[in-house]
Amino acid sequence: MSQQKLIKPRILSGFMELSPNKQLIFDGMIEKIKRVYQESCFMPLDTPVLELSEILLAKSGGEIDKEVYHFTKGDTNICMRYDLTVPLARYVSMNSENISFPFKRYQIGKVYRGERAQRGRFREFVQCDGDIVGLDQLPIAADGECVFLIDKIFKQLDIDIVNHISNRNILVGYCRELSLQDKTKEVLTLLDKVNKIGKDGVEKELENLGIDKKTSDKLLYIISLQSDFQEVLEKLAPLSKDEIFVEGLRQLQELYQYIQAYQIDKKNYSLDISIIRGQDYYTGTVFEASIPSHPEFGTVCGGGRYDNLAGYFSQKKMPGVGLSIGLTRLFDLLDKNNMLPACPPTNTTLQIIPLGDYLVECFKLQSYFSKYLNCEVNYENRSFKAKMKEAGKKQIPYILIVGEEEIDRQLYTLKNMALGEQFKLSKEDCLKMICK
Amino acid sequence: MSQQKLIKPRILSGFMELSPNKQLIFDGMIEKIKRVYQESCFMPLDTPVLELSEILLAKSGGEIDKEVYHFTKGDTNICMRYDLTVPLARYVSMNSENISFPFKRYQIGKVYRGERAQRGRFREFVQCDGDIVGLDQLPIAADGECVFLIDKIFKQLDIDIVNHISNRNILVGYCRELSLQDKTKEVLTLLDKVNKIGKDGVEKELENLGIDKKTSDKLLYIISLQSDFQEVLEKLAPLSKDEIFVEGLRQLQELYQYIQAYQIDKKNYSLDISIIRGQDYYTGTVFEASIPSHPEFGTVCGGGRYDNLAGYFSQKKMPGVGLSIGLTRLFDLLDKNNMLPACPPTNTTLQIIPLGDYLVECFKLQSYFSKYLNCEVNYENRSFKAKMKEAGKKQIPYILIVGEEEIDRQLYTLKNMALGEQFKLSKEDCLKMICK
Repeated sequence: MSQQKLIKPRILSGFMELSPNKQLIFDGMIEKIKRVYQESCFMPLDTPVLELSEILLAKSGGEIDKEVYHFTKGDTNICMRYDLTVPLARYVSMNSENISFPFKRYQIGKVYRGERAQRGRFREFVQCDGDIVGLDQLPIAADGECVFLIDKIFKQLDIDIVNHISNRNILVGYCRELSLQDKTKEVLTLLDKVNKIGKDGVEKELENLGIDKKTSDKLLYIISLQSDFQEVLEKLAPLSKDEIFVEGLRQLQELYQYIQAYQIDKKNYSLDISIIRGQDYYTGTVFEASIPSHPEFGTVCGGGRYDNLAGYFSQKKMPGVGLSIGLTRLFDLLDKNNMLPACPPTNTTLQIIPLGDYLVECFKLQSYFSKYLNCEVNYENRSFKAKMKEAGKKQIPYILIVGEEEIDRQLYTLKNMALGEQFKLSKEDCLKMICK
Repeated sequence: MSQQKLIKPRILSGFMELSPNKQLIFDGMIEKIKRVYQESCFMPLDTPVLELSEILLAKSGGEIDKEVYHFTKGDTNICMRYDLTVPLARYVSMNSENISFPFKRYQIGKVYRGERAQRGRFREFVQCDGDIVGLDQLPIAADGECVFLIDKIFKQLDIDIVNHISNRNILVGYCRELSLQDKTKEVLTLLDKVNKIGKDGVEKELENLGIDKKTSDKLLYIISLQSDFQEVLEKLAPLSKDEIFVEGLRQLQELYQYIQAYQIDKKNYSLDISIIRGQDYYTGTVFEASIPSHPEFGTVCGGGRYDNLAGYFSQKKMPGVGLSIGLTRLFDLLDKNNMLPACPPTNTTLQIIPLGDYLVECFKLQSYFSKYLNCEVNYENRSFKAKMKEAGKKQIPYILIVGEEEIDRQLYTLKNMALGEQFKLSKEDCLKMICK
């Protein structure tokens, strides 16, 4: 083996691999998100990473998007999932007889997109999704619950966000009001670009669509409504009596009631009519959360309502509402902007160092302490001094020194590394001091 | 969309997809395993699911095993990982400059083997691995720590196991003792089959290898030594003075000291010379845990020591020792044998049901209670009676009824569903009663 040619160890480009101390923070974020979902009684789902191509590509009629990883095994065409929504649609269709609706599930897992690797884009990334799926109908209360979850999750993550909320019925209805119903899709796609190409850019493109200046001004006005929820609701009310518009307004009003009931801080959400969210499967409520102090991060959480989740797989109508957080990208941005919590090199709370040939005694102590805290024995073949130095470098908070005298008296030397203090204590008292 | 042909929702064969209540148990098991690793100061690592084929197939010189999922994207040959050990070897080689050795990491993640689906075999399964990797050398104490971890993990999972421990140096040295050093690999492979083909089968095949009856009897005797650690150590001692054999014995004696220090219950481990573990990268300590009440489950956790983890990627010598639990298979076996803990259909502790049009008030209460426990509002468009019946079916432990009277008096009706009792309490007292 020693003579063989070595293979240069490396990973595929566009894949994130964190150092263990950063992974600890990443996992901690997942834990917090999971807990919030569970506190609202969402249940976990874990669908396979691989699915039949026929299932994952149902939307495009089997046509393979170039960013989807796919391959053939035997006679089977297989894709790696590129989101968690199609697998959810497949799951609820497959199991609709056994599911109790509304079905509230969270799924935190890796998805794959083999797109050209760009700055801040990953080919493997963790998505944290929560969805509420109804059968035949789903009250707006569910949309309220999603808005509540987003607020709670980012509070837990200690990240200040503003959740920009809208309802697509407003713009769909307003297009009818302006007799643009035949061009709704094109108009919405254009308006969605306002943050990219600016107001002037949108105006020019609306003109290209054959829309006159007066109408285009009205559209640009309505998407400029983005501030306090109550205020925007009042400005919207007189704009149209169109049935769909009025329904959108009613849904927003109802949603607003629930948001208030949830006591979400006013500065953490707004009503923003420019929020459209490209995918045309969204139907009512839509939302996008961003970080006001870092607008360049873009959307850190998005979602909304879709009237028919599983149309490709089931005749049953299953409306849903959900949110999605792209955690890998968010983590990467936080990391690059020094916004992660401090990450010490280890998770060790107590390291036991033998002073002499006392490993057996040390392991006895480890089996005691590790019931209560993260504890290890330093069994390396190095000098005591070198071990103490290394422990300092690793920022280990407590060191327990176990030598002959300590073992004889059953009093161990506990050193608080930050304060530089040390005490001779029984193991029980050591535990008390550390846990204090 | 409604006119299109529906696609039959289904998943690939050989893939496990749990119902959410079972997923909750599965996730709970992962949590417990993770906590044990952390209590011994193992750090998390999460390598990509996809790796360059060159890396994952280093062992076989690039030859693709038919069970490995692989594909090409652009010019790149990509494989899905089939274990977590090769990625670990790649990781430590890539990052050896920044790692502080011994490097203790756990990784809990999915691996992929596209083998023919058999009963109890999965093509996607979760492995829970823990390894300790040293630079140049690694004390036997690390092997002790792995044995300790296995004991703790299965205690946490409430599963009674016996960890069968051996050291490959014993058999390697004994082959030298019997002048079989040229046939060591074949002999070990044969002896490893004793549980499959029986003593007679092994005897016959040893004969085919040209090994005489007397020698073969000695081999069969030594692998029959499987019981109390101390007892087997004593029986081994007189068998050989071969250097490697004696070294194996010394390692086992040292390991035994640590196992005793960790106060592992005697009934939970044994010294069992028949344990070999096929892969020839194991060098010293080897272990396999099984469940005595269900021998048909086979090995539920295995591992051991390898002298050179990363020989394909690095000139540095990195000895390691590790354990691996195939959680998907274990879970499936526990499930099929009704050995899982009870799994109620939901994780809801408290469901709030409005009696009338009081959703806003209910959401206020949810935002209060969900800080402390899993709480949801039942906002379905169904009768109160239907909701209560459904809550009973779902085994939700507490129901809070919120009607006009409750809101006026700020005293809510809390119903303990198991006892059928109900009380009128303030929200604070409701919380106290539930958390009691």
